[in-house]
Amino acid sequence: MCEEVTLGMIKAAATRIQGQLHRTPVMTCSALNRISNKQLYFKCENLQKTGSFKARGALNTLKTLLETGVKPELVVTHSSGNHGQAVAWASDALNLPCTVVVPEGTPKVKCQAIQGYNAELVFCTPTPTGRKETADRIAKERNGVLVHPYDNYNVIAGQATIGFELLQEVPDLDYIIVPISGGGMTSGISLAAHYMNPECQVVAVEPEGKNLQNCIDAKERLWDNPPQFLNTIAEGIKTQQLGQLTFPILCNLLEKVITVSDKEMADGCKIIAERMKLVVEAASGAAIAAALSNQCEFMNGKKVGIILCGGNLDMDALPWQIVN
Amino acid sequence: MCEEVTLGMIKAAATRIQGQLHRTPVMTCSALNRISNKQLYFKCENLQKTGSFKARGALNTLKTLLETGVKPELVVTHSSGNHGQAVAWASDALNLPCTVVVPEGTPKVKCQAIQGYNAELVFCTPTPTGRKETADRIAKERNGVLVHPYDNYNVIAGQATIGFELLQEVPDLDYIIVPISGGGMTSGISLAAHYMNPECQVVAVEPEGKNLQNCIDAKERLWDNPPQFLNTIAEGIKTQQLGQLTFPILCNLLEKVITVSDKEMADGCKIIAERMKLVVEAASGAAIAAALSNQCEFMNGKKVGIILCGGNLDMDALPWQIVN
Repeated sequence: MCEEVTLGMIKAAATRIQGQLHRTPVMTCSALNRISNKQLYFKCENLQKTGSFKARGALNTLKTLLETGVKPELVVTHSSGNHGQAVAWASDALNLPCTVVVPEGTPKVKCQAIQGYNAELVFCTPTPTGRKETADRIAKERNGVLVHPYDNYNVIAGQATIGFELLQEVPDLDYIIVPISGGGMTSGISLAAHYMNPECQVVAVEPEGKNLQNCIDAKERLWDNPPQFLNTIAEGIKTQQLGQLTFPILCNLLEKVITVSDKEMADGCKIIAERMKLVVEAASGAAIAAALSNQCEFMNGKKVGIILCGGNLDMDALPWQIVN
Repeated sequence: MCEEVTLGMIKAAATRIQGQLHRTPVMTCSALNRISNKQLYFKCENLQKTGSFKARGALNTLKTLLETGVKPELVVTHSSGNHGQAVAWASDALNLPCTVVVPEGTPKVKCQAIQGYNAELVFCTPTPTGRKETADRIAKERNGVLVHPYDNYNVIAGQATIGFELLQEVPDLDYIIVPISGGGMTSGISLAAHYMNPECQVVAVEPEGKNLQNCIDAKERLWDNPPQFLNTIAEGIKTQQLGQLTFPILCNLLEKVITVSDKEMADGCKIIAERMKLVVEAASGAAIAAALSNQCEFMNGKKVGIILCGGNLDMDALPWQIVN
């Protein structure tokens, strides 16, 4: 299926990150089972180190590099959010210097979170292109290694361990609902499912405006360039385009795309807080929103994995309090 | 120590509730360890059925009753909060009819939560005395069995299973910090600790105005009568007086009382949401607030259990958003 990310690589990644990262719990909730008419299994990556799944890919990538005998002079990435924190955390855990490129105007609390892991911050213009160019330049000037948020097979193998752990615990899942952005997590989980239980189908959930289903159906990148961010409260999944590596994997493996509104994501966050007592961010709210929407009625009575991908929220501006 | 609640009774309670209730996880958080200078072990009763520990005592009491061959015609209690939900849930789980007395003016969402477990609601005047008299009258008229929120040895044995499970998992705890109201949970956990690890000291955390330390020091009920509710955002621990059964146990076993303000509790809830991604109510916020306050510096470097007793919050009026 994908020679670059085999089951062996996913297993190796699981072993590699063990001890330094949490094997996050798989939770159930009888109230949400009743409301959704499904048997839901929540993989709680909001309880992961750094508050999101991103720590898996970052740690796997850097440790793989070190195993090959390369000790980078600098680790570089661009992200004000979960990936930035994850790369800063993983670098710190491995005693590697790290620079994170963040867009001008990034809230202070996010900058502090990254600096809390001893990374240096560099500001750039707030566009996908501005970020990439600044990070590329720094990496070149200072002999640094770039850790891409999703378009990297070691990152994909790292995120695949989410699916690996979930299917170890619940091998007979019928579906897994995964919030999608650049596609690193979704392609990783799709590969894990493909290897471990080919009957288990992966469904991606996207914010409005991403238009992924059409691209998948056409097996073509129909998106406008240059790459844009979507206008959504779900910061974790605002990247419109899938990666060059992740898109072909998902053209092969993805079962279906569900689109949800900001309001649905916000309500999803609220119901997870009320019923499961978990703080999850809007991207995670998207996953439960999909499960509760009539678009997923075809899953009724089935066993469905729900990826709660992260829990990094501003507690003074919760999704259900700020959505229009 | 307490012939009415032996280690055997606590073990029997643990077996009795198994399967119908969660063995809640014990979580750790490296950030909060660092901030508090302690090794903290969080017993997550916010993840318990009904959203609080109260389900333990309620289920243990009703199942014990059924085991003795008594099938009550009606289960009665008075509480608009966690105990009301817990008794309604346990009655429903055991197919027993249930009436919950709630004070006039109880928010609709709380009434619905109780009714969601198929219990009948009866309204009363909103004072401790009004509640008790109404519940007593209904129990008498309709041949019902009253389940007291704390002054009942089966309730105490049920809540003791929290300490039992926690000390099974972390046997060498130095301290356990427990939010206190009527004292059912605190006396239960104190007894479990006394039997399982007498070196482990229980510290109670109270809202302002409870004055428990003076009562414990004097071994005397110094509170004004009739019983009052404290003016606090922590609804779960607003009862001022300890029970007639719980007070003597705690006079013997309680190490110390810590008092925290509403602001400290609210900040405690916020830091648990931010750092651990858990929704906890103000009473649970009190426990982490105590651990973070300079009143608990004597615990620095030690292993400290923190009881996150519940997670039932109004998501539109979170403690850190409503506190003055």
